[in-house]
Amino acid sequence: MDRLWQDANAIISSSLKAVLPDEAVHQALENHGMQGDIYLLAVGKAAWQMANAAYESIGQSIRDGIVITKYDHSQGPIGNLTIYEAGHPVSDDNSYAATQAALDMVAGLSADDNVLFLISGGGSALFEKPLIPAAEMQDITRQLLACGADIVEMNTVRKRLSAVKGGRFAEACPAKINAVVLSDILGDPLDMIASGPAAPDASTCEQAMAIAEKYSLRLSAEALSLLSKETPKQLDNVESHVVGSVKHLCTAAAVKAEELGYEPCILTDQLCCEARDAGSFLASIAKSHACDGKALAFIAGGETVVHLTGKGKGGRNQELALAAAEGIAGLDNVLVFSAGSDGTDGPTDAAGGMVDGYTAARLADKGIRISDVLAENDAYNALGTVDGLIMTGPTGTNVNDVAVVLIS
Amino acid sequence: MDRLWQDANAIISSSLKAVLPDEAVHQALENHGMQGDIYLLAVGKAAWQMANAAYESIGQSIRDGIVITKYDHSQGPIGNLTIYEAGHPVSDDNSYAATQAALDMVAGLSADDNVLFLISGGGSALFEKPLIPAAEMQDITRQLLACGADIVEMNTVRKRLSAVKGGRFAEACPAKINAVVLSDILGDPLDMIASGPAAPDASTCEQAMAIAEKYSLRLSAEALSLLSKETPKQLDNVESHVVGSVKHLCTAAAVKAEELGYEPCILTDQLCCEARDAGSFLASIAKSHACDGKALAFIAGGETVVHLTGKGKGGRNQELALAAAEGIAGLDNVLVFSAGSDGTDGPTDAAGGMVDGYTAARLADKGIRISDVLAENDAYNALGTVDGLIMTGPTGTNVNDVAVVLIS
Repeated sequence: MDRLWQDANAIISSSLKAVLPDEAVHQALENHGMQGDIYLLAVGKAAWQMANAAYESIGQSIRDGIVITKYDHSQGPIGNLTIYEAGHPVSDDNSYAATQAALDMVAGLSADDNVLFLISGGGSALFEKPLIPAAEMQDITRQLLACGADIVEMNTVRKRLSAVKGGRFAEACPAKINAVVLSDILGDPLDMIASGPAAPDASTCEQAMAIAEKYSLRLSAEALSLLSKETPKQLDNVESHVVGSVKHLCTAAAVKAEELGYEPCILTDQLCCEARDAGSFLASIAKSHACDGKALAFIAGGETVVHLTGKGKGGRNQELALAAAEGIAGLDNVLVFSAGSDGTDGPTDAAGGMVDGYTAARLADKGIRISDVLAENDAYNALGTVDGLIMTGPTGTNVNDVAVVLIS
Repeated sequence: MDRLWQDANAIISSSLKAVLPDEAVHQALENHGMQGDIYLLAVGKAAWQMANAAYESIGQSIRDGIVITKYDHSQGPIGNLTIYEAGHPVSDDNSYAATQAALDMVAGLSADDNVLFLISGGGSALFEKPLIPAAEMQDITRQLLACGADIVEMNTVRKRLSAVKGGRFAEACPAKINAVVLSDILGDPLDMIASGPAAPDASTCEQAMAIAEKYSLRLSAEALSLLSKETPKQLDNVESHVVGSVKHLCTAAAVKAEELGYEPCILTDQLCCEARDAGSFLASIAKSHACDGKALAFIAGGETVVHLTGKGKGGRNQELALAAAEGIAGLDNVLVFSAGSDGTDGPTDAAGGMVDGYTAARLADKGIRISDVLAENDAYNALGTVDGLIMTGPTGTNVNDVAVVLIS
């Protein structure tokens, strides 16, 4: 079993490294092809790291630049870049001021200039210029939340009330834009990540109006008229590259697993079901393949959910692993782990959980029943007693989670 | 899409056929190697079909025989066999009388005789001779249920209070036993199917005593002394063959899928998580592989569960399919189905559900929201409006369910 744990830890290190902003940005800029002056704009929770990595690579070509990240996420000055910290998950005056500064920076550029736009999750709040008073924007958001609108519906409405979302920043920018994207949304929809400031928008005015009608939204005349103003459907000045996503995380896990002698199978990079059931499903796969006589690695990336029923401490990755422990109990050649790429699973200091065929018995020896722990959502404390927590510390990236079944 | 639906229906027909009792028993008896007189004993919900198939194959060699099945499950006389119908899921006097008749039939046999023992699910109730008064047996069962004992704990105790469970029928039988098993339990544990009347028992007296202690069971002196009487750990007169199980169901689905041009992948034959989350997981797999440019079939067999939250009509297979419909919405080359091999999913006349990338939109056109339907457990009515129900009628077999993702 020691070997399995070593291999699992090697796969975690290697796959996390592949999606760190630094690594991703360095790779993206290796053959960037941008001629002449470059203006940098970095937006999102990983903006500082992405900007810092870009500065390391091509600092001498960066004429000017703005970094907008969450409070306490700046790690100090970077060359000639101006760093703003602002509100997240709710925009504040600093968000608006920083966004205006970015618009001002690009306003005077020409089609020969380059904007290197570094985008990461959290950009929706951090990068915003509302076209209606901030108070009305907040009221509309509250109305949408109260009537149970989903995130796609929310964004379809809010993009039309913004001067930068839904491709409008790129539309307003005279320069060429090289968008380098770290994706925190399953499937990497460019028009959803950070609300798509540089992406052609797939939603339509017709849809926006239908949503307003469906939920009987109370809107000012101004807001109502904005809903029927279309977002850009084509942006010829933008080239986008997703350089880090859960797909990269899964691929890196598969590459490392193969290097270690496992036959890898990426099941999905869009997992989104209940965490404990994902764990049970993965355990079922392990049980059916444990006797194949082959070293196998089944990989599932995504973002599972937890419906809280208790008051314990844990996170979705820890619940997935703990539920899997029940399913693989007794198998001496199986390990399951699940880890969040940001290094903090739920409100805990662990990145996730790791279990093997002996974990359930070790817990039982301590009088701990897995079903009780799951009912209390207390995976952190249970896994803690059997060395089942993955501790990486905050990683500075966020491209969702990866769960792996190893069969030796 | 028509092609996908045709292929799915062909896979369902073909895989169900492979696990029908008739087919399975015919195959098992092709080269049975039994010399001389054969005594037949068939026990379980599929006992009549299994006995009938055996009689068709080797009727002329069957000297005597007993069939014990559930009420309304006999389809008429079979040659010289005596057919009993009895209580299920709770044993009744007919169960005891039929079981005694079976014990009497084999009592006078010699080591040169053969007993063809046809075992299917439901045998725990149908085939029983308690060693304590029936009323006390019922009381102990109630106590175990009330304190939350799991099925393994229940069986560990109850096997020791029975004259036929836990291998004791085989121990009492002087003849050679050829056990032909149709498995309704994931993983095909021979000592669990029908409570293992002809299988060496893995549980121990020590475990039984620990369970009695853990739950503070109230037991008579007689019952207590029986708990410390060991079940047989080795049975030299028995040869067992599992001829139908969810593994066969999955394999048959894979074979047919391959024949139809799909690259098959059996993920598991031991699926046991919440139905809707299994559907979501399978949809995630479909989303990640829909653009691989290959025709693929992902197969997951098992028995999912449904935790009821509403009062609608449905079953686990229908919920799985409906949840998958949400996940694969918009994909034009994906179909997902899930079907119960017994042909009756939950309390409905459908075997399961079938959906494709257009199902969610078709439901939305009718004003039906999948999340609402799942909250009401009303998959039957929703799928009914979009031709999404699989109707096979009762099949006469029960080896759990199979779910398949087809990508064309």
